[in-house]
Amino acid sequence: MKSYRKELWFHVATRRAFINITPEIIECLRESGVREGLLLCNAMHITASVFINDDEPGLHQDYEKWLEKLAPHEPVNGYRHNVGEDNADAHMKRQIMGREVVVAITEGRLDFGPWEQIFYGEFDGRRKKRVLVKIIGE
Amino acid sequence: MKSYRKELWFHVATRRAFINITPEIIECLRESGVREGLLLCNAMHITASVFINDDEPGLHQDYEKWLEKLAPHEPVNGYRHNVGEDNADAHMKRQIMGREVVVAITEGRLDFGPWEQIFYGEFDGRRKKRVLVKIIGE
Amino acid sequence: MKSYRKELWFHVATRRAFINITPEIIECLRESGVREGLLLCNAMHITASVFINDDEPGLHQDYEKWLEKLAPHEPVNGYRHNVGEDNADAHMKRQIMGREVVVAITEGRLDFGPWEQIFYGEFDGRRKKRVLVKIIGE
Repeated sequence: MKSYRKELWFHVATRRAFINITPEIIECLRESGVREGLLLCNAMHITASVFINDDEPGLHQDYEKWLEKLAPHEPVNGYRHNVGEDNADAHMKRQIMGREVVVAITEGRLDFGPWEQIFYGEFDGRRKKRVLVKIIGE
Repeated sequence: MKSYRKELWFHVATRRAFINITPEIIECLRESGVREGLLLCNAMHITASVFINDDEPGLHQDYEKWLEKLAPHEPVNGYRHNVGEDNADAHMKRQIMGREVVVAITEGRLDFGPWEQIFYGEFDGRRKKRVLVKIIGE
Repeated sequence: MKSYRKELWFHVATRRAFINITPEIIECLRESGVREGLLLCNAMHITASVFINDDEPGLHQDYEKWLEKLAPHEPVNGYRHNVGEDNADAHMKRQIMGREVVVAITEGRLDFGPWEQIFYGEFDGRRKKRVLVKIIGE
């Protein structure tokens, strides 16, 4: 069994953003040499997500608005977590969008449907944060 | 290490539906010959889910109503994604219900609690769509 | 390939609770002897979650309040599932918080960011319930 590990670092200038990290993940897979197996990609921070959906800017604006409705940032003092912090909403948004994805690797490729792309979802940016890529297989 | 891959295809006649796919998954596991390992089952489309919950029709009606409240289909033009499309809500519903499940395989069986069943959740049907089953182990 | 399996049992006295199970998971990993691989931890019940977030009591109170807003327990008869039961909301809350986590194992450790902790999320307690830990790797 082969195993491979890499951290991908991000510094998002805004509080929130969605970044397509599929090209970086494909490069990890190439480096790993794994042909058949599973790839785990997870946020290493608890106010961020890794998820799979569409690379369509209108949809990302819809997600932004929708997540803000389900877990609003304001009023900041409406959350008990926000003592010296203001990111409680980011912990909620991350639960809806998810921490991680597990992707099948088949014949050396990400085994994806036609529109699947992997995104880093940042909900409390403006600092360095990272994603873990772990691959096991043969 | 053994690996196994199969696509399961669906053509749901309605926009939304929940389909119990546990029997098909058990058949995949049998075909794979894997006794100890992990099984990944994921939607290959970004407006559909694979999730584990109860095979109880009342609950499925509750999910339908609840998802519609959290991410309403109407008004269609309330979503920026809906330019020539009307499925933005399906991209939201899928995030709540999830893209994938990972299931332990122990002694050749899905290692499940008493009520766990695997469902395909369709949120934008009326066309052919598919699910991926990937199994690794020994 | 090594594989390891353990059930962790809980009896939460209240309907809802969040329990940090990271120490038990670390002990499982030690017992498994796996140095490189993947660890799956999932609720074996469909009204409970396993998720990764912060071990901060204020945040847990925020989660409790937030989940109650998104999927209220009352009115109990507002759910079709609640025929002789009163836990439909627990099936909703579990979907938001998730069934399972998959964690990378690197050099014999849970490969975690600085604040990641694993929680059992109980949404319909007052009875014995359990979590599955499955580890594969080398």
